[in-house]
Amino acid sequence: MKQDIPTTKDRILNAANSLFYGEGIRAVSVDAIAEKAGITKRTLYYHFKSKDELVTGYLASRDQPNLKIFAKWFEETEGDLSDKIEAIFINLAKNSRHPKWKGCGFLRTAAELANMPGHPAIKIGAAHKKKFEAWLAEQFTETSIKHPNQLARHIILIMDGAFSTMLIHRDPSYIEAAGDAAKNMVLAALNKT
Amino acid sequence: MKQDIPTTKDRILNAANSLFYGEGIRAVSVDAIAEKAGITKRTLYYHFKSKDELVTGYLASRDQPNLKIFAKWFEETEGDLSDKIEAIFINLAKNSRHPKWKGCGFLRTAAELANMPGHPAIKIGAAHKKKFEAWLAEQFTETSIKHPNQLARHIILIMDGAFSTMLIHRDPSYIEAAGDAAKNMVLAALNKT
Repeated sequence: MKQDIPTTKDRILNAANSLFYGEGIRAVSVDAIAEKAGITKRTLYYHFKSKDELVTGYLASRDQPNLKIFAKWFEETEGDLSDKIEAIFINLAKNSRHPKWKGCGFLRTAAELANMPGHPAIKIGAAHKKKFEAWLAEQFTETSIKHPNQLARHIILIMDGAFSTMLIHRDPSYIEAAGDAAKNMVLAALNKT
Repeated sequence: MKQDIPTTKDRILNAANSLFYGEGIRAVSVDAIAEKAGITKRTLYYHFKSKDELVTGYLASRDQPNLKIFAKWFEETEGDLSDKIEAIFINLAKNSRHPKWKGCGFLRTAAELANMPGHPAIKIGAAHKKKFEAWLAEQFTETSIKHPNQLARHIILIMDGAFSTMLIHRDPSYIEAAGDAAKNMVLAALNKT
């Protein structure tokens, strides 16, 4: 019986990922998630004590997979550092063409919870973004770039801009333009421009 | 009696601005807005046929005031083009310290309506962002910058990034860092770096 517990939790998180990411956290009720997961609300509340906890769990479940995919896009790209950074944007632009693509779940949740800055889900989102920023800074440090932390911060800002602008224009060329800008920033830092 | 009509509409829009911007569009009911405006729901529906129309009206009412404040910050700043662009970010960072600051209402609405890309409120948001992008391109054209449209797009991307990242970290230094990045972009375009 013990083995059922993680499976049920995974089913809840899968349903939460699909509905919260697909429709937004305020638009989706705990009832809808329990129904999609094929369980009772009581069982759901056994695993997640509240909707807030479920929203937090949904974002926490996206942390590692998202970081891994950015690292994969970076690593699998031939070329110099600027090409590898641009590749993250080119891949994002490609993904954004998928009808199920709805931007960045972390940023969208922070936008929905703008009146609750201390919400635990926002803390998970902030930690995720900090991890990505630190990972970028690490790549820049390895390449002996002068101000790796500053460059990492500029790249994350333009990337978050790409995510947000795309949701308003629904035009992937904005993400590609962000990739151009990011590439220029890296090239400038490499003193190649 | 005729003069009451715009006054009532303004009261509704003021209430919508305060509540939709303050708490989010899905978190706030039409009832709450009617109550805050001190009118009946029936009167509200006389002016705005649906909640969707009210959300759209709220964003439309922010279009010109927001564009004007950005232009004001730009114009009142001494220095070259890069200083004037950076000033927009410095002022945004200052504003973001106010407890009522909750990011960009256009981007937050687009984030909340990510599953409704054709929603009229998103169209208003997209038109607003396009207007700001075109205004930036105009300033760059006047200064004979080589690729004014490209630079305007890069600036708007980093600015939207600043708005969104700030909501997740609640740290105005991210908006200041975006201002640094924007300044660098303008300086590079002016061939001064």
